[in-house]
Amino acid sequence: MHLALFLSLSGSHLAGWRHPLAEHGDPFDVANYARIAQAAEQAKLDMVFVADKLSIDDIYGSSFEAAVRLRPAIHVEPLTLLSALAMTTDRIGLGATISTSYSEPYHAARMFASIDHFSKGRAAWNAVTSVNDGEARNFSRAEHLGHAERYERAAEFIDVVRLLWDTWQEDAITADKASARYADPSRIHYADHRGTWFQVKGPLGAVRPPQGHPVLIQAGVSGAFQSLAARNAEVIFPVQSTLAKAQAFYADFKAQVVAAGRSPDAVKVLPGVVPIIADTDEDAFELEAQLDALIHPEAGLSFMSGSMNYDLSVHPADAPVPDIRDRIRGSKGRFEVVLKSAMEQGMTLGDLGRSYAKGLAFAKFVGSPATVADRMEQWVREKGADGFVVMPPYMPGGAERFLSGVVPELQRRGLFRSEYAGTTLRDHLGLEHPGNRFDLGEDMLAAQ
Amino acid sequence: MHLALFLSLSGSHLAGWRHPLAEHGDPFDVANYARIAQAAEQAKLDMVFVADKLSIDDIYGSSFEAAVRLRPAIHVEPLTLLSALAMTTDRIGLGATISTSYSEPYHAARMFASIDHFSKGRAAWNAVTSVNDGEARNFSRAEHLGHAERYERAAEFIDVVRLLWDTWQEDAITADKASARYADPSRIHYADHRGTWFQVKGPLGAVRPPQGHPVLIQAGVSGAFQSLAARNAEVIFPVQSTLAKAQAFYADFKAQVVAAGRSPDAVKVLPGVVPIIADTDEDAFELEAQLDALIHPEAGLSFMSGSMNYDLSVHPADAPVPDIRDRIRGSKGRFEVVLKSAMEQGMTLGDLGRSYAKGLAFAKFVGSPATVADRMEQWVREKGADGFVVMPPYMPGGAERFLSGVVPELQRRGLFRSEYAGTTLRDHLGLEHPGNRFDLGEDMLAAQ
Repeated sequence: MHLALFLSLSGSHLAGWRHPLAEHGDPFDVANYARIAQAAEQAKLDMVFVADKLSIDDIYGSSFEAAVRLRPAIHVEPLTLLSALAMTTDRIGLGATISTSYSEPYHAARMFASIDHFSKGRAAWNAVTSVNDGEARNFSRAEHLGHAERYERAAEFIDVVRLLWDTWQEDAITADKASARYADPSRIHYADHRGTWFQVKGPLGAVRPPQGHPVLIQAGVSGAFQSLAARNAEVIFPVQSTLAKAQAFYADFKAQVVAAGRSPDAVKVLPGVVPIIADTDEDAFELEAQLDALIHPEAGLSFMSGSMNYDLSVHPADAPVPDIRDRIRGSKGRFEVVLKSAMEQGMTLGDLGRSYAKGLAFAKFVGSPATVADRMEQWVREKGADGFVVMPPYMPGGAERFLSGVVPELQRRGLFRSEYAGTTLRDHLGLEHPGNRFDLGEDMLAAQ
Repeated sequence: MHLALFLSLSGSHLAGWRHPLAEHGDPFDVANYARIAQAAEQAKLDMVFVADKLSIDDIYGSSFEAAVRLRPAIHVEPLTLLSALAMTTDRIGLGATISTSYSEPYHAARMFASIDHFSKGRAAWNAVTSVNDGEARNFSRAEHLGHAERYERAAEFIDVVRLLWDTWQEDAITADKASARYADPSRIHYADHRGTWFQVKGPLGAVRPPQGHPVLIQAGVSGAFQSLAARNAEVIFPVQSTLAKAQAFYADFKAQVVAAGRSPDAVKVLPGVVPIIADTDEDAFELEAQLDALIHPEAGLSFMSGSMNYDLSVHPADAPVPDIRDRIRGSKGRFEVVLKSAMEQGMTLGDLGRSYAKGLAFAKFVGSPATVADRMEQWVREKGADGFVVMPPYMPGGAERFLSGVVPELQRRGLFRSEYAGTTLRDHLGLEHPGNRFDLGEDMLAAQ
């Protein structure tokens, strides 16, 4: 079983920061993140992971008012955070989201290469497409790209980044004083990428990362996402609310991976899960009720509006959820499912806002450490998952309860490592080290 | 006197890496940078500073061959490096170059804000314009922007970044559980920038940095540069080869600062200087001769070609330097001076390559620690400089000799601090903390 910890200071439950057990940590004090990452490393987790959005959500009511008032709607910049964590941890993997929509492949390739070097092979990139017009408006565009274009751009972006990572073969730098040869030009290559979205000549301003390529994560559920991820991803973070749905997705997605000519083990499927843990099952359900009682529906609706790129404030909160599935211009895959399910249950829009705020449509495992471990064991044994992204509902206690309660239980059952076997994130995940296309003589092909 | 250390593993003399005293450090092992930064902090320097280029120089002969073969032509990515150094140092300032030509103001503002937070107020941004077509070709452009356009874009870029840094007023985040108010929307503002080059709505995805604005550095000498820097910069790094030239530049530039409505002390002028230090003056001249004997002229010519954006390989190396000043499409200000001086001295192009490789046209202070301290004292007392960017010719020994020899001498003379008085880089440099335009009620104006 592979475990990633979703690293935030506020938790995945949108009212988690308000619970009496939650401790508010300054989101720009890096020591707060370092402490949690160190605790996750102590528990031998595969990695910590930081999410991102490139704007403060302001689709709901065309304002950031509800978002900033009701919930922690601000993210610390992921690459600077990862680089800092590379210095304060030794073994745990370090994953971060960087959008392919408003970045340049050269910058992304170079910065992830740096972090992989600084951490000696522990970096992972969650390559996403941005979701809303608020993000576009921070990058000199009036509205964000359409769904198909976003995925085309993402596919090309990933190709270019991987190509750039290969442009320096191993040991190109010799620094030989006597022969006055600093580096061997024959081991350094142009990328010469000329595509639809990008033209990038290279070589990259970074030697090849220790992992060859930092691990590629992708998060999503839509058809376009699955098609891209089946060809490229090494880890995926899907949203799955029940074991049955997770199993159907897992089987279908792994079949796509095989159809793309890859081993099914080449991609680890790690659904997000919100563990709500107390000493007993009864106390855990009580904790869940306490958390849910603190929710303001607009916390959920403002989050949903940002992720859907659709302003839900135009509909009355006390009327049934309208069928607006064809108006989703952001995260299509997730919200088609969320809306369909809400309509089937006869929810009002306010109900849906409250429901979404409970854990962003991820599965919730509620109970004692043993109960939560049971659920995790079942999902993995019954082929719903290869592991999980653990998304504590409140912080830092929610993470501590998982790391000190559930992880030892999983270790006792022989389901999770008690020591790191290797040193890189690829080692932890059991992923192969990618070969360099230029080692394989493909430079002739690339030059054509 | 203010002192910045130019942080590299190979030194500013292009053959420095070949000298027997030089020790080759893996340029992607962050521990090598951390050790030097810690030594500079021990010596109480104002800051360490990292340069950058967004390509491997390949203008000379339309190939990176000479550049990578003859000299360390690869730079570690500056922002990830700065973030790592924020974790391994406590007091010293941390400056890095990020080009305004191929970045987005939103990303730059957010990442420097992060680093300023992580370091508790020690970040500085050297805002440059990129210089050559090799860089353009890594960012989907055939050639780089013209000189005037680059500076227009840079000016607007800097304005937007500073505006974004102001979008969160102090204490906007309250995280008040009882009132369910995470942040106060009235203390958060749109940037609403609609300019020629950029349209950026904001607010920034980062609360205001501890320094208000990270310190703004600019490096250059051209007229367009001086005009921009007089209005904006807080530190400048000019290239000055002699005291007389430095004095003329200093007087003229400070007058421009005053004409722009600012105090002359609001900008610190720190010319680059290459200190070549040994126990005695005689030994230092011998060391300089040893370094210079190791130079290959193409090391200099490939560097110059990259910085000029003009391929010098088309001219014979053994003929006099041709007057190609009107063909410089890169760093105009610096190379107009360099070419003029070479022509006046009757140099061949090969001579010029050799000469440039000795220290990139920066002043060289050669001698015992006392002699180097004398020169530094003279430049500052006689109004040629407010301090220096110290650019050791080889590493790490060249930096160690400066830090352990010259700095104590400057301290004995009362010219340089023996302890840090404050905690932020602004404190070290004696720069004011910038007010927030939104505190001043300018939000009404900004919204118009």
